[in-house]
Amino acid sequence: VSSPSAASVPADRLGERFFAEIREQPEALHRLLEHEAEYGEIARSIADRRPSLIRLVGHGSSDNAATYGVYALGLMPHMTAVRDSISLTVYYEAELDFSASVVIALSQSGRTPDVVEYVRRAQELGAFTVAVTNETGAELGEAADVALPLAAGPENAVAATKTYLNQLAALALLAGGIAGRGAEIADDLRHTADLISTSLSRLEAEARPIATSFAYVGRMYAIGRGLEFATAREVALKLKETCRIAAEPLTATDLAHGPVAALDSLFPVWTIASNDESLPAVIEGASRVRSAGATVVASGSAADEIGAAQHVLTVPEAPSPLLAPLLSVVPGQLFAGALAQAKGLDPDRPEGLSKVTIAR
Amino acid sequence: VSSPSAASVPADRLGERFFAEIREQPEALHRLLEHEAEYGEIARSIADRRPSLIRLVGHGSSDNAATYGVYALGLMPHMTAVRDSISLTVYYEAELDFSASVVIALSQSGRTPDVVEYVRRAQELGAFTVAVTNETGAELGEAADVALPLAAGPENAVAATKTYLNQLAALALLAGGIAGRGAEIADDLRHTADLISTSLSRLEAEARPIATSFAYVGRMYAIGRGLEFATAREVALKLKETCRIAAEPLTATDLAHGPVAALDSLFPVWTIASNDESLPAVIEGASRVRSAGATVVASGSAADEIGAAQHVLTVPEAPSPLLAPLLSVVPGQLFAGALAQAKGLDPDRPEGLSKVTIAR
Repeated sequence: VSSPSAASVPADRLGERFFAEIREQPEALHRLLEHEAEYGEIARSIADRRPSLIRLVGHGSSDNAATYGVYALGLMPHMTAVRDSISLTVYYEAELDFSASVVIALSQSGRTPDVVEYVRRAQELGAFTVAVTNETGAELGEAADVALPLAAGPENAVAATKTYLNQLAALALLAGGIAGRGAEIADDLRHTADLISTSLSRLEAEARPIATSFAYVGRMYAIGRGLEFATAREVALKLKETCRIAAEPLTATDLAHGPVAALDSLFPVWTIASNDESLPAVIEGASRVRSAGATVVASGSAADEIGAAQHVLTVPEAPSPLLAPLLSVVPGQLFAGALAQAKGLDPDRPEGLSKVTIAR
Repeated sequence: VSSPSAASVPADRLGERFFAEIREQPEALHRLLEHEAEYGEIARSIADRRPSLIRLVGHGSSDNAATYGVYALGLMPHMTAVRDSISLTVYYEAELDFSASVVIALSQSGRTPDVVEYVRRAQELGAFTVAVTNETGAELGEAADVALPLAAGPENAVAATKTYLNQLAALALLAGGIAGRGAEIADDLRHTADLISTSLSRLEAEARPIATSFAYVGRMYAIGRGLEFATAREVALKLKETCRIAAEPLTATDLAHGPVAALDSLFPVWTIASNDESLPAVIEGASRVRSAGATVVASGSAADEIGAAQHVLTVPEAPSPLLAPLLSVVPGQLFAGALAQAKGLDPDRPEGLSKVTIAR
């Protein structure tokens, strides 16, 4: 797909594809749910193996989704999931014991070279390997024992949105299925799709004026904790990709262990606050940010509880805390798109990126 | 410890404590090695348990050391180590199965609240827990099954240096001991201490003029891969803490999956290049950085091989690739100190930080 340069695109058409795919997310989620039975079947075969470890791998947005998977799977009884090191297996050829491991490999294109290579070696070393991808027929799906469809549909924007959302849903479905709660989670996901659908226009209207006031911002942190750390990572990535902001994700707690020292009034912080057990840590982190003189934007279902916030973007409460990150990421996506426009950048045309990344 | 404000400190005395502790590192390393036998004993008792998983926890620099531990332990046959989620256990009270796990908890002070709490719960749930800390008598040491001394000696600078180095050495000793190679690693560590000692003055002299030219930099990435990703994390943290730079660590590969889009000529990248299997990925990442118009600083034993670099800080080759990160971090520490001075900041007095972080 070739694009004209940002300068030649009328301001109101910058990021057309990016916004179209953000708005398409409820529909994309429903498309994934048509595959509920397949997900249930694979979840049962994972559960039957009683893995001692579930190893998640991916790069970019897919790695952010893997962060969510660590929590979604870890919240199910007796399950430990980790974002595995790709380089130990692919570069160092470490003699890892994969015999009691299940691998879940995430890639939009199914062609990320070192994710494909990781899956090949993990399988040789005894892992049961599951690919979750938009392109089940590509190399990753071929290499894995089974391939599950993300069903997000063709993603034309370089910066992923609907793929990320469907990856979260896919991991929630697998986690739920493994714990024998697949049908419940699928119903909750359908409800979540509707909640996103009904709040999109309002959130876009609310995010735009905040973005305008951020037009000259060059540095940000995004903070979250627990389930919402994945959201912090994903929002920070969208800001780097589409707005050229040096936006680093941090847990609300790690913020206090050094990074808070860099903050000032020109260095705002995006905060993700949901109603769960990690909320007090996020409230405390946000108040440190304010003490440092930095602006706080609060997003999420508990955004109102961030007393330190100058800007608030509240999303509906998810049907269950597990699914909160699917709603919490939406204001960040919309803000990134609007801020790119305010900066005169085209979110559909980030510098130096292409849709399929073949970097090793 | 109270400090005068940066403005009242003569420029050549800014960061006195920080520099003193960087220079003390070889000596601190030798102090740790006096405890070789204790480390060997605990390593054997870890090996005897044949853990299916080693879970590392810490915040800030200790978490960066944990990143090193993932690789140092993962490179030993049949061992999987991960940086574990603290919030799953401490906030969400997830029903994790710790019965086949060993926990290694890292904390300079031995008083980081949620690390202490994590260890208490992990132990109740069946883990064998090892504290590695400068203060073995503090809460963390009390809570854990065993406490190993870091022996770095009192750390007065807020930004950790010698503690981080000794944490890497402690993890290398444990990894080596588990694999029956403890004596070999201990000898290599003694040799490493000497290599640091003989290169410190040269590196300080070389880092200073580069730092001067970075006086107005506000955004950086630090990239590494594999064993050196820990170094990228630690250098980025020093730059945030002491220089107030928005410095994000990235793997050389993740750089290409989005973040490269934010780079420009005012957004330089610190690169860590060591002679190991991950070097080609780092060389490729650095060349992407140059294509984006950004300045590259190359550090590490293979810094010369980064063709894209405008600045090169070469360290001696470590006795074994496993120990390269102990040498590679030193130029980053010295650069951060010199850059803070060039910015008129006092590295001994970062904004909003204190030596012991009690944030939850």
